[in-house]
Amino acid sequence: MIPGHALKTLSEIVGPAHVKTAETFMLEYGADASRLTATPDAVVFPGSSRQVSRILILAAETGFPVIPRGAGSGMTGGAVPVQGGLVMAMRRFDRILAIDQDNFIARVEPGVITGHLQEAVEKVGLFYPPDPASLHISTIGGNVAECAGGLRAVKYGVTRDYVLGLKVVLPTGEIIHTGVQTMKGVAGYDLTRLITGSEGTLAVITAVTLRLIPKPAAKKTMIAFFLDVSAAVRTVAAIIRNRIIPSILEFLDRICIDCVRQEMGLNMPERSGAMLLIEVDGDEMHVASDVETIEEVCRRGRAIRFEAATGTEAADRLWEARRNVSPALFRLRPHKISEDIVVPRSRMPALSAFLDALTAAHGLPIAAFGHAGDGNIHVNIMLDREAPGQMETAGIVVKELFREVIRMGGTLTGEHGIGITKAPYLGMEIPPAGILLMSRIKDAFDPKGILNPGKIFPQKTL
Amino acid sequence: MIPGHALKTLSEIVGPAHVKTAETFMLEYGADASRLTATPDAVVFPGSSRQVSRILILAAETGFPVIPRGAGSGMTGGAVPVQGGLVMAMRRFDRILAIDQDNFIARVEPGVITGHLQEAVEKVGLFYPPDPASLHISTIGGNVAECAGGLRAVKYGVTRDYVLGLKVVLPTGEIIHTGVQTMKGVAGYDLTRLITGSEGTLAVITAVTLRLIPKPAAKKTMIAFFLDVSAAVRTVAAIIRNRIIPSILEFLDRICIDCVRQEMGLNMPERSGAMLLIEVDGDEMHVASDVETIEEVCRRGRAIRFEAATGTEAADRLWEARRNVSPALFRLRPHKISEDIVVPRSRMPALSAFLDALTAAHGLPIAAFGHAGDGNIHVNIMLDREAPGQMETAGIVVKELFREVIRMGGTLTGEHGIGITKAPYLGMEIPPAGILLMSRIKDAFDPKGILNPGKIFPQKTL
Repeated sequence: MIPGHALKTLSEIVGPAHVKTAETFMLEYGADASRLTATPDAVVFPGSSRQVSRILILAAETGFPVIPRGAGSGMTGGAVPVQGGLVMAMRRFDRILAIDQDNFIARVEPGVITGHLQEAVEKVGLFYPPDPASLHISTIGGNVAECAGGLRAVKYGVTRDYVLGLKVVLPTGEIIHTGVQTMKGVAGYDLTRLITGSEGTLAVITAVTLRLIPKPAAKKTMIAFFLDVSAAVRTVAAIIRNRIIPSILEFLDRICIDCVRQEMGLNMPERSGAMLLIEVDGDEMHVASDVETIEEVCRRGRAIRFEAATGTEAADRLWEARRNVSPALFRLRPHKISEDIVVPRSRMPALSAFLDALTAAHGLPIAAFGHAGDGNIHVNIMLDREAPGQMETAGIVVKELFREVIRMGGTLTGEHGIGITKAPYLGMEIPPAGILLMSRIKDAFDPKGILNPGKIFPQKTL
Repeated sequence: MIPGHALKTLSEIVGPAHVKTAETFMLEYGADASRLTATPDAVVFPGSSRQVSRILILAAETGFPVIPRGAGSGMTGGAVPVQGGLVMAMRRFDRILAIDQDNFIARVEPGVITGHLQEAVEKVGLFYPPDPASLHISTIGGNVAECAGGLRAVKYGVTRDYVLGLKVVLPTGEIIHTGVQTMKGVAGYDLTRLITGSEGTLAVITAVTLRLIPKPAAKKTMIAFFLDVSAAVRTVAAIIRNRIIPSILEFLDRICIDCVRQEMGLNMPERSGAMLLIEVDGDEMHVASDVETIEEVCRRGRAIRFEAATGTEAADRLWEARRNVSPALFRLRPHKISEDIVVPRSRMPALSAFLDALTAAHGLPIAAFGHAGDGNIHVNIMLDREAPGQMETAGIVVKELFREVIRMGGTLTGEHGIGITKAPYLGMEIPPAGILLMSRIKDAFDPKGILNPGKIFPQKTL
């Protein structure tokens, strides 16, 4: 609980219009895309780094949690105020501060929506590649806090690869700049990348310096169907072996294909055991030659159908299956648990066989789709939460999945983070000495433990 | 001083053949490429992570410093045992553990020489881009510890961008794996990138997992001369604006050009105020079209001479000036102080003018060359250490340089690190709150302060 005198001070810091305690706000700001909820004591909308600093000092003195929040589009509950306290919504930090066309750098506040930044830089011929599925609602600050990935990560990398520097407020109230405003820099410890992906537990981000690249002149979309996952994965490897890194290399398994075929009435080969959606970008000449090579590689890889889009409309049609896969899966069961595990690319066929075995053993359908190029697969365990025993079964399936993924040399999360949903499993991937070291780093930043408590680290109680 | 009983225990841990205290060893392992020296008490050559762990536990119990060391090619004194103690030479960790051609990953021990790894992966059509000038002697472990850059960083990024995971021994003795063996991963804090560039102060690296990419099929070298730095820098921006990121984009200023012309008798235009050495790579077709575009851009940018190499031999000839610039500078004065500052690319003409002003004010010639594509310029202050007052003057020049670089939005070091030579200046770039936070992170890893003490952080006494 935030005591009354602290609420009054909050009001003085940001102005009464920017502190909310009404129930509608508590509901909205108590939930995120994980569908988990909790009730904060208040929501604050700070307007400057200085205000953020004063709020954090107040929280440390008074002893209440502060939960920084972007758009609330996180998948693992990172923005859910599990221990109550103050949700700090960064909505007012919504300015693109600078797009430096000479140095290919953007400086933005954390509340800028990722898609808006992309439009703004593309207007001047530049490009910000990270493209999480949520890009039309999620914010740069949230993307940095989670180290968001996306479809283009296979060619262009993830958010981490574009963050040059940060302005942050430490939980102890200091406002500091980390990293650089230049293309390179190695002075001192890499606080920038330590804070990137720290899920709002180490510092509150108030400005971000991002690296941009030239916007590719052209792109082209292709789709290919295969009899099984092995054939598709061999083709992925063959494409890259031919020195082509597609900008997008997405995968759908048989269950996903069947769902979208039925749901959308799409014309897809009946025997398809795997689908690849491929996009290449670059200059016109290069894109054309890449498409030729990829068609040849797909045909040699025994694709049962291959199509290259001839225009924007045709490309849109090829995207239809991928775009609709997530909603189409609800044909199978009314609810789903979605995990974003990563395995070495070559282990994807083995993962696919393992998912079949899990379904056979436990009776819950499991659909896999996602980023074939980097082995980051969204595994969807379909269930009916109301049906007796299915939640428990799904819990067992998740644990068996994680165990196998670790055994294959993979990781629990490629882009969604640990948050609260994966915190109980972190110990499967990171041994006690690693978790202890991380908690000492947390203490170094946040000795009072006020910033986004209850996240990442396995909790005694939630 | 390491007490006798601890030396005896060391001997038991690694075997007597792998502990040295003879003077020749103390001399060799007390120096690095910074030309600074100090005398260790002993040198140890551990052969396993387990041995490293036992040594670190012994050091923490006994209370002596441990200085991890690769090839000793660091430029800022990172491997110099300034407080005595035990130099831990990682020479025996020299195996390439795996080159995974399916997943484009290499797993190597830290003592592997960077150039050897590059040859090994190129034999199977893969590519490890980071190419510090020292690559034929420096090791992967040292490159990771310093976050080494290189010529190809403008297109391919730095060491940090290729490190997926590490096996490290913490100063407290625990052996942990950080990061992932896959292309993506965001579980917990990013210890991998925190340790990368930490200059051997946080952990001892005993294995490295690296991302590889397909080897470009072709490359081509060009050289262009301009009347002044402004024209050269405008051309650099224009090349990138044309959506070409050259694999190499090196710069020499007038003083460097004059030195190599005189020293090597090279045929270079008399009026040249700046030279660009440009390399593009990719597939044959693309390289050919890039060369055409770059030639056009250079001519429009008023290049007074442009040459594209027609073969390997011709390319070698174009490289001659760049390769010989560092030794040729000693024509000016017998010694040099070399700083690897970074400024926003667009500020390079202003930096050049500032260097001229510094020379005019203080009388020491200053020659600048380096990585134009990312603004990472090696600034060489030429002097005669024996001449009265010149060392003091050089100190003033360095400080004025750093002050101006920071003012331009730059950084003290793009790839050499802070070590001991730049530690007194770190506070110019990072304010006290940032340095304090870094020192708390250091304490979180190394509560006894045994690992490479006296580095990075401004010292009361050295």
